Amino acid sequence: MRYGEKAIKKIKLEIWDNSNPERDYEINISFPEFTCLCPRSGYPDFATIKINYVPDKKIVELKSLKLYLNSFRDAHISHEEITNKIFTDLEKVLRPRSLEVIGDFNPRGNVKTIIRAASKR
Amino acid sequence: MRYGEKAIKKIKLEIWDNSNPERDYEINISFPEFTCLCPRSGYPDFATIKINYVPDKKIVELKSLKLYLNSFRDAHISHEEITNKIFTDLEKVLRPRSLEVIGDFNPRGNVKTIIRAASKR
Amino acid sequence: MRYGEKAIKKIKLEIWDNSNPERDYEINISFPEFTCLCPRSGYPDFATIKINYVPDKKIVELKSLKLYLNSFRDAHISHEEITNKIFTDLEKVLRPRSLEVIGDFNPRGNVKTIIRAASKR
Amino acid sequence: MRYGEKAIKKIKLEIWDNSNPERDYEINISFPEFTCLCPRSGYPDFATIKINYVPDKKIVELKSLKLYLNSFRDAHISHEEITNKIFTDLEKVLRPRSLEVIGDFNPRGNVKTIIRAASKR
Amino acid sequence: MRYGEKAIKKIKLEIWDNSNPERDYEINISFPEFTCLCPRSGYPDFATIKINYVPDKKIVELKSLKLYLNSFRDAHISHEEITNKIFTDLEKVLRPRSLEVIGDFNPRGNVKTIIRAASKR
Amino acid sequence: MRYGEKAIKKIKLEIWDNSNPERDYEINISFPEFTCLCPRSGYPDFATIKINYVPDKKIVELKSLKLYLNSFRDAHISHEEITNKIFTDLEKVLRPRSLEVIGDFNPRGNVKTIIRAASKR
Amino acid sequence: MRYGEKAIKKIKLEIWDNSNPERDYEINISFPEFTCLCPRSGYPDFATIKINYVPDKKIVELKSLKLYLNSFRDAHISHEEITNKIFTDLEKVLRPRSLEVIGDFNPRGNVKTIIRAASKR
Amino acid sequence: MRYGEKAIKKIKLEIWDNSNPERDYEINISFPEFTCLCPRSGYPDFATIKINYVPDKKIVELKSLKLYLNSFRDAHISHEEITNKIFTDLEKVLRPRSLEVIGDFNPRGNVKTIIRAASKR
Amino acid sequence: MRYGEKAIKKIKLEIWDNSNPERDYEINISFPEFTCLCPRSGYPDFATIKINYVPDKKIVELKSLKLYLNSFRDAHISHEEITNKIFTDLEKVLRPRSLEVIGDFNPRGNVKTIIRAASKR
Amino acid sequence: MRYGEKAIKKIKLEIWDNSNPERDYEINISFPEFTCLCPRSGYPDFATIKINYVPDKKIVELKSLKLYLNSFRDAHISHEEITNKIFTDLEKVLRPRSLEVIGDFNPRGNVKTIIRAASKR
Repeated sequence: MRYGEKAIKKIKLEIWDNSNPERDYEINISFPEFTCLCPRSGYPDFATIKINYVPDKKIVELKSLKLYLNSFRDAHISHEEITNKIFTDLEKVLRPRSLEVIGDFNPRGNVKTIIRAASKR
Repeated sequence: MRYGEKAIKKIKLEIWDNSNPERDYEINISFPEFTCLCPRSGYPDFATIKINYVPDKKIVELKSLKLYLNSFRDAHISHEEITNKIFTDLEKVLRPRSLEVIGDFNPRGNVKTIIRAASKR
Repeated sequence: MRYGEKAIKKIKLEIWDNSNPERDYEINISFPEFTCLCPRSGYPDFATIKINYVPDKKIVELKSLKLYLNSFRDAHISHEEITNKIFTDLEKVLRPRSLEVIGDFNPRGNVKTIIRAASKR
Repeated sequence: MRYGEKAIKKIKLEIWDNSNPERDYEINISFPEFTCLCPRSGYPDFATIKINYVPDKKIVELKSLKLYLNSFRDAHISHEEITNKIFTDLEKVLRPRSLEVIGDFNPRGNVKTIIRAASKR
Repeated sequence: MRYGEKAIKKIKLEIWDNSNPERDYEINISFPEFTCLCPRSGYPDFATIKINYVPDKKIVELKSLKLYLNSFRDAHISHEEITNKIFTDLEKVLRPRSLEVIGDFNPRGNVKTIIRAASKR
Repeated sequence: MRYGEKAIKKIKLEIWDNSNPERDYEINISFPEFTCLCPRSGYPDFATIKINYVPDKKIVELKSLKLYLNSFRDAHISHEEITNKIFTDLEKVLRPRSLEVIGDFNPRGNVKTIIRAASKR
Repeated sequence: MRYGEKAIKKIKLEIWDNSNPERDYEINISFPEFTCLCPRSGYPDFATIKINYVPDKKIVELKSLKLYLNSFRDAHISHEEITNKIFTDLEKVLRPRSLEVIGDFNPRGNVKTIIRAASKR
Repeated sequence: MRYGEKAIKKIKLEIWDNSNPERDYEINISFPEFTCLCPRSGYPDFATIKINYVPDKKIVELKSLKLYLNSFRDAHISHEEITNKIFTDLEKVLRPRSLEVIGDFNPRGNVKTIIRAASKR
Repeated sequence: MRYGEKAIKKIKLEIWDNSNPERDYEINISFPEFTCLCPRSGYPDFATIKINYVPDKKIVELKSLKLYLNSFRDAHISHEEITNKIFTDLEKVLRPRSLEVIGDFNPRGNVKTIIRAASKR
Repeated sequence: MRYGEKAIKKIKLEIWDNSNPERDYEINISFPEFTCLCPRSGYPDFATIKINYVPDKKIVELKSLKLYLNSFRDAHISHEEITNKIFTDLEKVLRPRSLEVIGDFNPRGNVKTIIRAASKR
C-alpha cells in the first residue's frame, strides 16, 4: 500500500450540477494551506495546491474540497504522488473538459519544487 | 427562480454607439468593489469583476455598468452563476465581436476562486 | 464636431527618417502624464498612453509627440475616442509596419478602463 | 581537462522510479544557493539553478541533487559550461521526455547573465 | 559621419569558442549602467542594454563587452541608433543563430522609450 | 438620530476572558471586507478596518466581531463616524489598556481617506 | 501678484462639524491627480497631494476639497508655493490641532522633488 | 487542563552557551510553517512565528526549536494562548535580556490576527 | 589637488529666495542619474543622490542643481568624497536650517555602499 | 580553537584615512554573497552581511573588505559567531564612532535567522 493510505481520512468530494454546461468556462481554485508529512524524514511539508478546470456536467463544492485537501494532514506522501493523486481523484468525479493540478511546495533543504499535471488539450 | 432574482434591482445597461466600428479594438474594464451574498451561508462575498471585449456597433456606458454591478448587493448567488449571468447580460445588449468576463473572488474558507467565461475566437 | 475639437491645440507631429529601415525593430513609448476632460462631467481624466510600433521609413520625434499629447489638456473627449484618434493620427504620418496604441486610464467611479487599438499583423 | 574537473567532488545522482509514468507532468526545481569559482579571477560566483523536466521512467531524488549541486563549490568553471554540464548529466541519468536547465547568475562587473539550455519539443 | 563616431573609443569585442555548439542554448545579458549623450541637447542619457542570443561557434567575453558598452560614454547618439549599432556590431563578430538587442532608456521629457531589434526566427 | 442607526443590525460583541492578563501584549486585527453606504450619494463604500489593542481582562471573540462589522452593510454613515463608532463600541465592552482603530477607505472621487482614532498612551 | 493667481478658479472649501471633537484622531487624505503649470517652461506639472490633520471643531468636505485641488489646473505655480498655499488655505478654514501637507511631484529634468510643510507638535 | 495539553508532544528545547555574552546583540528568528488546530472548529490554523531576543548566558539551538514548534501540530489551542505559551517557555529556559514573540496568523473568516508579546525594556 | 578637481566643470548653483521663510518645511530632492569615475580603476560609477533640507532664506533652483550634479561626469572621485563635497557645496550657498545628503551607489565588486552626511538637529 | 580558525584565510583589512573626519556621517555597506560552512552539518550557509558605521579617523577599503568576507568560505562557524567576529575585527581596525553588523542568513530547516550586533550610542 503506497504512501500510508490508511492515514488519509476518507472524505467524499461533493459534486454539484454545472449551472452553465452550454458554455466553456474556467474555474481556478487556489488553496494555500496544504500540509502533509514527508515520507522519508517524517517532517511536515507545506504547499499551495492550485486546481484549474473547465467543467462539463459537474462542479466540485468548495467546502468538501477543502476537507478533502485537509485529509492529507497525517499522510506520509511525496510531492509527485500528492499532485498526481489529486488529479486522478478530481478527474474521476468531475469528468471535466480539461483539468490541471499544480502542487507548489515550500523549499526543503533549500530546494523548491513545483509539480504540474494537466490533461491534454 | 434561481439565486433570489427578485433581490437583484432592475438596472438597465445604457448602450452607446461605438465611435470606431471600422477597427477592432479592445476595451478592458475592472471593477474591484463587487459584493453579493453567499447562497449557502448568507454571508457577504467580495470580488473584482473584469470585463474585456471587442465592440461591434455598441459600447456600454460605464456609470450604468457600475449601477448594474452594484445591483447584486442583496442577491444570494454563487460565484459561477454571477460570472455567467454578467456574461449573458452583456452579450445580449452589446453583441460584441468577442467577450470575456472574469470573477476574481476573495478567499472563503481559505479557498480562493476565479471564474472565467469567454466567447470563442 | 466631435469632442470639442476646437479645444485641441494644433500641434504638428515632427517626423524623422528611420536610420535603419532595412531591419524590423520595435519602438515602445510610454507617456504617464496624459490628461484631458470628461465629456460628461467636465472633470479631469488621467491616463498613461503607450505607443508601440515597427517603423517603416519614418519615426516620430519625441518632443513633438509630447507636445501633441499635451494638446488634449483642454479637450472634452471620451476614453475610446482619445485612443482611436491617437492611433489614426500616428498611422497617417508614420505609415508604420505595425502600430498599437493603449490608453490606460485612472479609475472613474471605481471603474478602471484600458482601451487598446492595434493594426493587424 | 576542462574546468578543473578534479575539483568537482564525485556525487552520484540518486534516481527513483516515476510513480505516474502513464501521464505527462512537469517537475520544476529551483536551487537559489549555487556557488562555484570564476575560471579567470578565481573569485566566487553565485547563481540560482532552475531545472524543469517531464519525467519518463525516472525522477531525481532531491537530496542527492542538492549534494550534486553543492559539489561545484571548489570548481573553476564558466557560466556557460556549468549550465551545459548540469543539462548533460541530468539527461544521461533521467532520459526525460523533455528537459530545461537555467543558470541565473548574480552580476559580475555589473553585467548580469542567464544561460538557458533546453531539449527540443 | 553619423553620431560623432569619433567620440566612440575603439574597443575590440573579445570572442571565445562556444563550449557546446552541438546544442541550441540561450545567453541573456543585462547591463543596467549604459550612458551616452543626447545628440540634440548634449545632456546624458541612461539605459539598460539587454542582449539575448543563441550562439553558434562563438560567444562574447563579458569584460570586453562591458568595455565596449562603456565606450559610448562620450558619444552623441540617438536611442534608435545605439540599439541598432550594438545589434550590427554583435551580429558581425558572433554570427549567432539568433540575436535580440533591447535598449531600455530612462524617461526624457517624461517620455519613456524602449527600442528592440531582433533577428527573424 | 445620526447615520440611520436603525439600519445597523443589533449584533452583540461576544467577550472572552483574557488568558494572560499578567502580561501586556498586543492584538492586531485586520478586516479587509468592510462595506457600508455613503450618507450623501447612497452608493456603497468599502474599507479595511484595523483594530489594535492591549487587552486588560477581556478579549473580543473574532466571529462576533466579524458579524458586528458586517452589520454596517445597510447603514448610511460617513468615514469619520464609522471609525469613531467602532472605537467607542470596543472601548465600552473591552476596557482595554490601549486601543487604536483605523478605517482605511477605498478612493471616492479619486480621493483616498484613512481615519485613525487611538487612546492616549 | 504671485503665480498667476487670477488663473486659480475661486473654489470655496466646504466645512463640516467634526462629529467627535472630544477625541484626537487623524484624517489622512491622498489625491494622486493634481496638475498645474510650470511657472518657467509653461509645461504641465503633476503631483500627489497628501493632507494629514487632527481636526478640532471642523473637518473639510471631500468633494469641495477635490474641486479646490482641481482649481490649480491652469495656474503657473512652483512646487514650493503650491504646497505652502494649500497648507495656509487649510489652516485658515480648519484651525486643526495639527496639519501636514505634502506635495509629491513627478520628476522634471530627471529630478524628483517632494515638499513637506507641517505644523509644530 | 487548557488547550488539550496532552496533544502537545514533549519536546525539550536544547540550550547552548552564548559565545559573546559580553555584548548585547539581537537574534531574530522567523518560522513560517507553524500549524495547530482551532479549539472551536477543529480546523487547521496556520501562522508565522517570529522570535526576537537579546541573549544573556544562553541561546536556543535552532533544530530543537523547530521540533518544539512542530509539536503543536495536533494541539487545539487559540491564537492568544499559543503566542503567550511560546513566550513563557522561551523565557524560562533562556532568561534572555529581552524577548518578543509574534504570532502572525493566516486569516480565518476573512479576519487576520497578529498577537505580539514582549518583555518590557 | 584631490580627486582630479580640474575634471569637474565649473557650474554655478543658482539660488532663489524662499517664498515661505516664516515656516519650517522640508524639500526632498532625488537624482537617480549621477555618474562619475572610480579613482582607482577609472571605470564609471553610478549613484542616486538624495538631498533633503529645510530652507532658511534661500532655495536651490533645480535645473542648475542638475547641471551641477552632471558636472562630476569626468571626475575621478570616491563615494565618500562625492557625498561630502555635495554637502559642503550646498551648505555654503544655501545656509539651510538643516541638510542631509545621501549617495546611494550601485554595487561594485558585489559590494553596495550608501554614504549619508547630515547636519545636527 | 573555535570554529576552525585555521580554515579562515588570513586577509588583512586595508584601512584608509577618512577624508572628512570633521563631520559625523554614516557608511552603509551590504554584501549579499557571504558563504561559510555549518559547524554541525558541514553544509554551506549563505547570508547577506550588512555593515553600518560612522567613521572616526579611518575607513575600510572595499576590495579588501570583500576579500576578508570571502575568506570565510571554508570555515565551519555558526551564525552568531560570524556576526560577532566581523564586529570585533572591524572595531579593532576602524575604532569607529559607532558600528553595527547584521548577518541576515538564508533559512535552514525552514527557520530564518538574523543576527545584529551594535555599539551603544
